[in-house]
Amino acid sequence: MERILITGGLVITATDEIHADVLIDHGKIAALASPGTHAWSDYRTIDATGKYVIPGGVDAHTHMEMPFGGTTSADTFETGTRAAAWGGTTTIVDFAIQPRGGSLREGLDTWHEKAEAKCSIDYGFHMIMSDVNESSLKEMDTLVELGVSSFKLFTAYPGVFLSDDGQILRAMQRASGNGGLVMIHAENGLAIDVLVEQALARGERDPRYHGEVRKALLEAEATHRAIRLSQVAGAPVYVVHVSAEQAVAEIAKARDDGLPVFGETCPQYLFLSTDNLAEPDFEGAKYVCSTPLRPKEHQAALWRGLRTNDLQVVSTDHCPFCFKGQKDLGIGDFSKIPNGLPGVENRMDLLHQAVLDGHISRTRWIEIACASPAKMFGLYPRKGTIAPGADADVVIYDPTAEQVLSVETHHMNVDYSAYEGKHITGRVETVLSRGVPVIDRHSYVGHPGHGTYLPRALGHYAN
Amino acid sequence: MERILITGGLVITATDEIHADVLIDHGKIAALASPGTHAWSDYRTIDATGKYVIPGGVDAHTHMEMPFGGTTSADTFETGTRAAAWGGTTTIVDFAIQPRGGSLREGLDTWHEKAEAKCSIDYGFHMIMSDVNESSLKEMDTLVELGVSSFKLFTAYPGVFLSDDGQILRAMQRASGNGGLVMIHAENGLAIDVLVEQALARGERDPRYHGEVRKALLEAEATHRAIRLSQVAGAPVYVVHVSAEQAVAEIAKARDDGLPVFGETCPQYLFLSTDNLAEPDFEGAKYVCSTPLRPKEHQAALWRGLRTNDLQVVSTDHCPFCFKGQKDLGIGDFSKIPNGLPGVENRMDLLHQAVLDGHISRTRWIEIACASPAKMFGLYPRKGTIAPGADADVVIYDPTAEQVLSVETHHMNVDYSAYEGKHITGRVETVLSRGVPVIDRHSYVGHPGHGTYLPRALGHYAN
Amino acid sequence: MERILITGGLVITATDEIHADVLIDHGKIAALASPGTHAWSDYRTIDATGKYVIPGGVDAHTHMEMPFGGTTSADTFETGTRAAAWGGTTTIVDFAIQPRGGSLREGLDTWHEKAEAKCSIDYGFHMIMSDVNESSLKEMDTLVELGVSSFKLFTAYPGVFLSDDGQILRAMQRASGNGGLVMIHAENGLAIDVLVEQALARGERDPRYHGEVRKALLEAEATHRAIRLSQVAGAPVYVVHVSAEQAVAEIAKARDDGLPVFGETCPQYLFLSTDNLAEPDFEGAKYVCSTPLRPKEHQAALWRGLRTNDLQVVSTDHCPFCFKGQKDLGIGDFSKIPNGLPGVENRMDLLHQAVLDGHISRTRWIEIACASPAKMFGLYPRKGTIAPGADADVVIYDPTAEQVLSVETHHMNVDYSAYEGKHITGRVETVLSRGVPVIDRHSYVGHPGHGTYLPRALGHYAN
Amino acid sequence: MERILITGGLVITATDEIHADVLIDHGKIAALASPGTHAWSDYRTIDATGKYVIPGGVDAHTHMEMPFGGTTSADTFETGTRAAAWGGTTTIVDFAIQPRGGSLREGLDTWHEKAEAKCSIDYGFHMIMSDVNESSLKEMDTLVELGVSSFKLFTAYPGVFLSDDGQILRAMQRASGNGGLVMIHAENGLAIDVLVEQALARGERDPRYHGEVRKALLEAEATHRAIRLSQVAGAPVYVVHVSAEQAVAEIAKARDDGLPVFGETCPQYLFLSTDNLAEPDFEGAKYVCSTPLRPKEHQAALWRGLRTNDLQVVSTDHCPFCFKGQKDLGIGDFSKIPNGLPGVENRMDLLHQAVLDGHISRTRWIEIACASPAKMFGLYPRKGTIAPGADADVVIYDPTAEQVLSVETHHMNVDYSAYEGKHITGRVETVLSRGVPVIDRHSYVGHPGHGTYLPRALGHYAN
Repeated sequence: MERILITGGLVITATDEIHADVLIDHGKIAALASPGTHAWSDYRTIDATGKYVIPGGVDAHTHMEMPFGGTTSADTFETGTRAAAWGGTTTIVDFAIQPRGGSLREGLDTWHEKAEAKCSIDYGFHMIMSDVNESSLKEMDTLVELGVSSFKLFTAYPGVFLSDDGQILRAMQRASGNGGLVMIHAENGLAIDVLVEQALARGERDPRYHGEVRKALLEAEATHRAIRLSQVAGAPVYVVHVSAEQAVAEIAKARDDGLPVFGETCPQYLFLSTDNLAEPDFEGAKYVCSTPLRPKEHQAALWRGLRTNDLQVVSTDHCPFCFKGQKDLGIGDFSKIPNGLPGVENRMDLLHQAVLDGHISRTRWIEIACASPAKMFGLYPRKGTIAPGADADVVIYDPTAEQVLSVETHHMNVDYSAYEGKHITGRVETVLSRGVPVIDRHSYVGHPGHGTYLPRALGHYAN
Repeated sequence: MERILITGGLVITATDEIHADVLIDHGKIAALASPGTHAWSDYRTIDATGKYVIPGGVDAHTHMEMPFGGTTSADTFETGTRAAAWGGTTTIVDFAIQPRGGSLREGLDTWHEKAEAKCSIDYGFHMIMSDVNESSLKEMDTLVELGVSSFKLFTAYPGVFLSDDGQILRAMQRASGNGGLVMIHAENGLAIDVLVEQALARGERDPRYHGEVRKALLEAEATHRAIRLSQVAGAPVYVVHVSAEQAVAEIAKARDDGLPVFGETCPQYLFLSTDNLAEPDFEGAKYVCSTPLRPKEHQAALWRGLRTNDLQVVSTDHCPFCFKGQKDLGIGDFSKIPNGLPGVENRMDLLHQAVLDGHISRTRWIEIACASPAKMFGLYPRKGTIAPGADADVVIYDPTAEQVLSVETHHMNVDYSAYEGKHITGRVETVLSRGVPVIDRHSYVGHPGHGTYLPRALGHYAN
Repeated sequence: MERILITGGLVITATDEIHADVLIDHGKIAALASPGTHAWSDYRTIDATGKYVIPGGVDAHTHMEMPFGGTTSADTFETGTRAAAWGGTTTIVDFAIQPRGGSLREGLDTWHEKAEAKCSIDYGFHMIMSDVNESSLKEMDTLVELGVSSFKLFTAYPGVFLSDDGQILRAMQRASGNGGLVMIHAENGLAIDVLVEQALARGERDPRYHGEVRKALLEAEATHRAIRLSQVAGAPVYVVHVSAEQAVAEIAKARDDGLPVFGETCPQYLFLSTDNLAEPDFEGAKYVCSTPLRPKEHQAALWRGLRTNDLQVVSTDHCPFCFKGQKDLGIGDFSKIPNGLPGVENRMDLLHQAVLDGHISRTRWIEIACASPAKMFGLYPRKGTIAPGADADVVIYDPTAEQVLSVETHHMNVDYSAYEGKHITGRVETVLSRGVPVIDRHSYVGHPGHGTYLPRALGHYAN
Repeated sequence: MERILITGGLVITATDEIHADVLIDHGKIAALASPGTHAWSDYRTIDATGKYVIPGGVDAHTHMEMPFGGTTSADTFETGTRAAAWGGTTTIVDFAIQPRGGSLREGLDTWHEKAEAKCSIDYGFHMIMSDVNESSLKEMDTLVELGVSSFKLFTAYPGVFLSDDGQILRAMQRASGNGGLVMIHAENGLAIDVLVEQALARGERDPRYHGEVRKALLEAEATHRAIRLSQVAGAPVYVVHVSAEQAVAEIAKARDDGLPVFGETCPQYLFLSTDNLAEPDFEGAKYVCSTPLRPKEHQAALWRGLRTNDLQVVSTDHCPFCFKGQKDLGIGDFSKIPNGLPGVENRMDLLHQAVLDGHISRTRWIEIACASPAKMFGLYPRKGTIAPGADADVVIYDPTAEQVLSVETHHMNVDYSAYEGKHITGRVETVLSRGVPVIDRHSYVGHPGHGTYLPRALGHYAN
């Protein structure tokens, strides 16, 4: 394995911005040094002058090849991780799903099979618990030992993923004992299903009604409920894809009280809105995901939450369905539209644009996109930072390059871009995964199978 | 200037804990490298095996040689900075005072004179504004250019330091324009003076009444007021020595709303309480400071605030007065007791003990004691971290050594310890200031005048 | 029907305290007049000199002859309403129960049968919905027309009374349309059942564990959830038997936001605590009810809520089970203890004691015990006040008489008093129901069947 | 004094709406009776069929003949109280002013002189304390004995009315002892004066800048401060003319915490806004008052506060200055515009319109305009209700009559109406003051000197 020296760049981590050369050896960061203070030579050198040298992105929420509503998300682990690399992301944590009536292990095995030898970058798994019972509760301990230390439960999707409050409490109690982390999809699904039925009965069938029935108040309610259950269990809780201002407020209040409550949001909630859901000719279907997009006014609360650290992580919830052949399952009935958006390739760029737009600082960009997700999910400091001993997952990022996001140019296996036409300043130039180039000056040089499974430790994110 | 290599230690910064060797060159951190990945030799080597390698502490709130109530705080810049070094602190930011009727510059010059050629470690200045007027407001711009980018105003001490709300607003507006930061001593001094007079009239003259009249509600009120004024001015505000739970709540609420409001607390509020103020035989006078010590119940809120980052900094407000000859000015009248406690030597140790006690994590220890104060006051990344390019202010800290805090062993120029008899696990072993040893394996090897004045940049602490 | 003139008393209503004579004619209040300003004569005169003349109490929450856990509450409508009259209450609103699988009407008919010709005082019904479905939702409209304008749903008791959030939302939506009011028993029953099972498994079987598993946080959670669902439905909501400080806080917050959210508490939460639940020899079982008694600290929040009108009503949730033969079903398993306390006879006295204890004013006593429940449940101004046109439900109350509450002297059909030995200043002397004496100078002179069914109008309680 | 019988009307009080005849004898309410239940005859009868019979309005905040900014408010006690009667108000509480350097008694005597033998309706006084010192503090006790049981202090108007926080605390402490009530004009005047000076320096001289510099945040700040000071003093506090949403929030929060904090708003804040202040040609000056009018969005919060009882009273702060000759003192300098609006004649009508507009209920109308101010300021039940024993201050109000507010038709001594052209449904028909007609079917039949001074008891408004 070759030694690489990255020279002349501005190294940005969650806390620091330093002018330093970075030495990579055996796939790890070996050293950082001020230019001119060392005599390293005989290495392959990457000149990063004028560029940022940043940790590879950690996307803690993806759904490759996920069955949903009679179809399957369009990116495989092969296409999805390749696209991730193009976008500067070097680690994903995807969701294995326990089959109803089956075991956690069964679900995990299925997902291992899907990912095995396919990935261009490293990957780990969370476990979706569809069936909380005596036996699956016990299995949680085993999963933690296998490096699957986080468990997603749903207050939404009755009959599919929904766990009742007793089941959620039990899972949280178990996690409290074994150090695992419960992730919650927080929407009151039982109430929402009533509103869905009533909307359809009133003839409200277009995609925009998806946003209207899945009310912000019902996201906030479920968020509050999950927090209280976690408090009873004495366990931390991580709320996925927070989109509503009122849900942010619940999380902020809990955190003020010192509770170990964490929140994630996604680029779609920061950059898109119900205006997109209302696009005519069924185009709104491209933006159907749950929690849904919210009116524009909510964006300010999300940005503020990211600045105040009431939200800690930006993941993508990448779950693409093609407009033709998949999204169109829901023509005439918004409730049949497969839920999900593509995004794994766009996250690092969109958040860099947010730096330029003044929403966050550069170090906060790296914190929410790399360091915090790695800490939260037991991958730090192996992933998420540039420091001696860390994996050499490094991105050379050109902060001044211009690009336009488009289905024409993206590498995700889906027939539209959620950000079609959006101008971005900043672009990934080169990506190393454990010291091995995956993207080299805008060319894909990786290969399926380079990426390895990451058994994860317990998270150690302390407020 | 020699090159130093620190090997085998655990390097702890505000975000990372890494096993790395640290190379120092020309007084700066030149490089960090994983042990075994480099071939550095021919350097003076410090073996830090089993030790922590941490940034030198940054104490952003000290008062050396400060006139107060007819006497002067007992530590000179010489004795005080030496004691600071003993305790692992390598930077202090002290307060120059504008004389009433005089200019800011006049005050600054006086303090430069006091500190010049006396300090064992580096130092900067904040400016206390005792007299806000047309002329001193204009001077603020000059001060910022001179590296004095923070200005302390008081809602307490009528007739001495108190600025009225109009003056505070004007100073905040000016700071909003020149990038300076207004620091507030937040207590409603006008109301407190009424309560003082009434207490004395009732014959309540012992030190403990100092705590009773300076009510938590009146700290919270002034904190709230300062926040609102800063909001009107469109300026950030930093509240010094927060001690009351209700004041923390005001800060937390403001921060939830996205306001640039910051808070500092001090070891005395975290470890001492009104129980100490009530010690018999006038011993309570040792603990008289303002804001005052609070009932024990407030400590939990302060620790929580530190964990949730609603409080960002722990400084000492070091302002020692001897029990004999100084504190005793207030025998029979608590309002005459000089306000202040010694602490500059104890801060890093006490906070390490807090790590062991489970209040904060190791990285948070370094963040609140080194990195955040440096960021807040425009010294980062020169001070407060260990990264290539930073000043080589480095402490070798033995996390398992045992010590007992005592006036017998401390180096501050004061005849008592506020923490007499307290057992601490952890101890400073060696301290480098810009690569030069000041403490070498428990011996003071520094000298007055090594420490230089630090003109400070603008703060860049973003929530 | 005779004419009665009550002279010389202090007439107290929800707002006024006036010295006035009260003229009763044809069972109604005909007039109030200042003594000496009228020439009324030839009436039966009741001399109320030195006494209070107050509206008869309205107890909006009783359970006579209610089946629960394999037994039936010990008071029949005959014994229960007689006891109510003894205690100065002249109206009860009891709960008819929809049988699972049956219709609302079926439940109502059953309860009409129980009460018909048995009651000494007037009575109305709320409807408990055990089975929310298409058909029972439609029936709600009919019930409102029949004078049953309030509907109780449960987030507790899974498998018995629990409605899921979708069902609750539908019922609220229906009530929003027909003007009915949804009442909520707010506890997260699914989570509580987990804790019950775990407690029993740990061998925690005594009555006091009933209080420990039914956590305050889980009452607050369900209260919050009910509020959010009502907000989505655009309907008001009334939370029954609020006992936890945190639940009061949820209600207060909602009311600050202008939401039509109402709360009731009960004497047992104001005067008893977990100390009682912990009484030895299974005596704690006497105090088992749900929501459970809370630690004493919660009482202050309830009193404050009553003063600030964040709680509007004090009802009894009267549901007595004998210690011998009923409560003892739960020896060795607290979850088998029938839930409920006697209290219908004690409410007016206990709240008068609260006036003397300084918790509430005299007018507030009448407001929370008479006027507000009557307004809330569509009985005002027929019931709950003394004003021309109102039913002559009048109590002559001696504010200086002394009594001791005891099973020896009470008239409820249950073998213990929850307030055994408690000294009360104040005592009911005479009670008129529609102008007819039921209690006459401490003698029962009423008869079963005097009380008639009260079809209720819509409530008109506006914040 | 004749006996009067009012028949056939709907009697509305703070709690009840009853069809009752009202008998008046010797200037007092002698009796209320259901029509047909009595045989009263030989009285002068007023037929109120189809009308409301309501208590005369109590306006707790007027400034007749008040010196301000070099001029004097345009209504004398003679013209002002006559106009009040026209508008259905039968009691005013005006503000006597302590001269700086003088005694409270001196101020009171001056105001007694102004009012003596001039008033058409009854009147009382609050005392404005302009000079809080040892002597005036002691005088407060005397004033309370003289029936002046409320004291207004200002955090605004430095150099004129402003008391510092120490003075306010002392006054509150004194009130806590003697049962008096401190009223606060809550705006941070020191900060506002800075903003005024800066606005003028920028050339912002039109009336609308009056609204911009007196910021909502600075009202909220002073409100919060007054609450905290009252908490320290253990005294209640009443905040006058609340206009900002954020100030309502401070009051609501304090009340949730059980603090005896009360708030008043005025019709101008409910019906007018900064849009009026921005009217061209200096017309905005007509709407200059302090606290200032706010943007329209604040109105919803005020109405909500009135519904939730976070605000208890609507007074007028009637303080008229003619547009020609008075308001024009401020042409070219908004800070010179005399502060104040006419309104004493319009309050009852505007609030009746609010009933029709759905903001409040009819009983709440009477509560906030009659009963609550009477309770708060020690006049209840003599004033503010219709009940045996109360003063016969009664208004026959025609709820269906139409009128248009205009300077052409109003009776206040001022050359403009703040509500010019506003359509109102509802109109005063007849007004009795202590049983004596002042307005008789739209004719003024009163006379100066009928109105008498009301020494007031202590307030007894308990949340």
